[in-house]
Amino acid sequence: MKTLIRDARVLTAGGELRASVGIDGGKIAFISGEIPKDFIPERTIEARGDILSPGFVNSHCHLPMTLLRGVADDLNLQKWLFEEIFPREDKLDGEMAAVGARATIAECLSSGITSVSDMYFFCEDIAKEVLTSGIKANLARGLTGYADGITRKTHKAFAEQEALLRDWHMADGGRIRADIAIHAEYTSSPALWRDAAEFAAEHGIVLQTHISETAHEHAECMDKYGKTPTELFLEAGVFASRVNAAHCVHVSDEDIHILASHGAAVTHCPVSNAKLASGIAPVEKMLKAGLHVALGTDGASSNNAICAFGEMKCAALVAKLRENNPVSLSAETTHALATAGGAYAQGREAECGRIAVGMDADLVLLDARRPCMIPLNSPYSALVYSADNTCVRMTMVRGRVLYENGELLTIDRERLFHDAERIRAYLA
Amino acid sequence: MKTLIRDARVLTAGGELRASVGIDGGKIAFISGEIPKDFIPERTIEARGDILSPGFVNSHCHLPMTLLRGVADDLNLQKWLFEEIFPREDKLDGEMAAVGARATIAECLSSGITSVSDMYFFCEDIAKEVLTSGIKANLARGLTGYADGITRKTHKAFAEQEALLRDWHMADGGRIRADIAIHAEYTSSPALWRDAAEFAAEHGIVLQTHISETAHEHAECMDKYGKTPTELFLEAGVFASRVNAAHCVHVSDEDIHILASHGAAVTHCPVSNAKLASGIAPVEKMLKAGLHVALGTDGASSNNAICAFGEMKCAALVAKLRENNPVSLSAETTHALATAGGAYAQGREAECGRIAVGMDADLVLLDARRPCMIPLNSPYSALVYSADNTCVRMTMVRGRVLYENGELLTIDRERLFHDAERIRAYLA
Repeated sequence: MKTLIRDARVLTAGGELRASVGIDGGKIAFISGEIPKDFIPERTIEARGDILSPGFVNSHCHLPMTLLRGVADDLNLQKWLFEEIFPREDKLDGEMAAVGARATIAECLSSGITSVSDMYFFCEDIAKEVLTSGIKANLARGLTGYADGITRKTHKAFAEQEALLRDWHMADGGRIRADIAIHAEYTSSPALWRDAAEFAAEHGIVLQTHISETAHEHAECMDKYGKTPTELFLEAGVFASRVNAAHCVHVSDEDIHILASHGAAVTHCPVSNAKLASGIAPVEKMLKAGLHVALGTDGASSNNAICAFGEMKCAALVAKLRENNPVSLSAETTHALATAGGAYAQGREAECGRIAVGMDADLVLLDARRPCMIPLNSPYSALVYSADNTCVRMTMVRGRVLYENGELLTIDRERLFHDAERIRAYLA
Repeated sequence: MKTLIRDARVLTAGGELRASVGIDGGKIAFISGEIPKDFIPERTIEARGDILSPGFVNSHCHLPMTLLRGVADDLNLQKWLFEEIFPREDKLDGEMAAVGARATIAECLSSGITSVSDMYFFCEDIAKEVLTSGIKANLARGLTGYADGITRKTHKAFAEQEALLRDWHMADGGRIRADIAIHAEYTSSPALWRDAAEFAAEHGIVLQTHISETAHEHAECMDKYGKTPTELFLEAGVFASRVNAAHCVHVSDEDIHILASHGAAVTHCPVSNAKLASGIAPVEKMLKAGLHVALGTDGASSNNAICAFGEMKCAALVAKLRENNPVSLSAETTHALATAGGAYAQGREAECGRIAVGMDADLVLLDARRPCMIPLNSPYSALVYSADNTCVRMTMVRGRVLYENGELLTIDRERLFHDAERIRAYLA
């Protein structure tokens, strides 16, 4: 399938370029003012100066938690988690998780998100939804424990992780990847960290985790071990693999040095961190240390949207508040976090996150004529500070259009609405 | 014209109600599960469980500044204002200001905003755009000075303010109102404050102003006068009228007491205050003091969107960060600021801001089946934390539909795009 996107403002790795983009076999074939004579597209999309951006990467999410969107807000974290979220999660089954994942994928696509990272359970059910939807995803079973002398061999979740790797890693030519996840320092033991680290290194996969999300958990870890979660993970060999560490709100300077020097990625989740009053991660300091930073929405129950634009804008705004400096985290840098930064966090930097010849055609086309985009000066500024989901004309993964003109092309929205509503009523 | 909105989740002043809403002569005629037999609508809108909210009020904006959207971002406030904004504003004329106002009104309507406050110049040109668009607006000429012995009688801007009042106050049955505006303490003199206060009291109009937006201006005022801007305005008689004070980021406890005890409204502009790194206004403290709080976008050049949803979400998030408490500024309270709070700031509380029988039918209908709204638990949470402009099915002012299914019904979007683009190129 050959597709031509004609006359766009293309946000290439080297900056903005007014050009046409040819797509062949799911990859970017050319970016040029001139369309090669031998390129005969089966479909031509007239961009008429609209903005073509790399698809956004949401590198920290819990897909099924969209089922719990808005069920309990504006609460203390402990009350929210233990009284509202955990009891409802106990009632979930695989079929429900699949509906939740489908809802999240629908929202991703409607927001120009072409790849998402998930840490949850019911991985098989989630993977099937990813497969049929056409989106890219890095999936991991969130591992906790080991309690009561359980080991890798007897740990049920670890067995699920092994099945995920066996059955789904590199499915559809790598569109689905299996990661592994240490849920967090405070929900697991050093033995688990070592086993997970070994597993990740053995299979060359990304290791997801939550690090120092709240001041409370960071301080508790210091009390218990005399070390930070990052230092403990270093000792356990976690950083031998690509690590995608969510949050990192309360990391120390030494933690940042460890993360940076081991090529880890931090997935910054500014909306979730604000909503739960966890704080603002020191993103400027991380970037100065050479650390790879990406953006994540976290689960919809603590956000409560899976929105690339909302996340970018919030990231840029809270950085300025944190640093007391309007120059902090420019629009162009923020856009890079949401695209190339996310691709790195997923171990996909050779495949997507940038618009360049040979890369997968994971793209979002943004309508420059929506009221919020008029007039258009810098496209980076427009994307980060002005755009919203109404601007998404088209979301494409590997050259396949999955969302266009407000409609999902691989998901039945009416069925999704009714399925999700039925489960919502059951969980309410 | 009789319109029926059938089977909505209606956000009434008393809470959520599943009901139909009848509109007659631009006003809400009934809110009921049963449709009165003698009510024969000319149009019926099937809400099928979608959310019907009071239209949002954006009570602090500079309408023409949308022309400068994205022209200069991520800069220090002084550099931004003096090197980028002011020189371009000097090039504006009334025709350009009209296009800028039209762009902002288009964006308001696409975001469910039914009434907006403006402080700028070229008031006549702006008023004409308001008139034809169908939106409600409170317009004021931003007054600065007096320099060099100028008085009210010889002050050009004051003459424009008098013309605005004479020609436009209460136009179209009060859809347009003339306010008066003291731009700010630091751009004007005590004589101007007294004259403006007198003018407001004489005509019973709202007085708009900027108060203590930055720590710098607040401190400079203390150095110069030994008093806060709020204290100075109190002495000048400003609070004898309804005051709509934007920002108030750095107000003292005593300032909050003065504002509250005089029935003033504070228009909180969380996005602009974050983007310029001005800080976070103490909204929780204001609400506890019984102060009326509303929400404003500020001009698009420091936001850079005129979006009710973005503003509500940012307000709720930054309150939690400021107070270090996830319980701060709940979704329901935030929604009230954006509706009833805004109506109060405009002196329109007897006319709109709530859904109740006899009030103007200034309404927004929100699609509960958009991906970001699935599933729907609390409608307040959905509106504040999850919704975006894609959810706006319809925006109505006084029973007249001005925006529906992504289309502006009173503004030619293609013409607007080309007009704004031409001016943008001239100003770039």
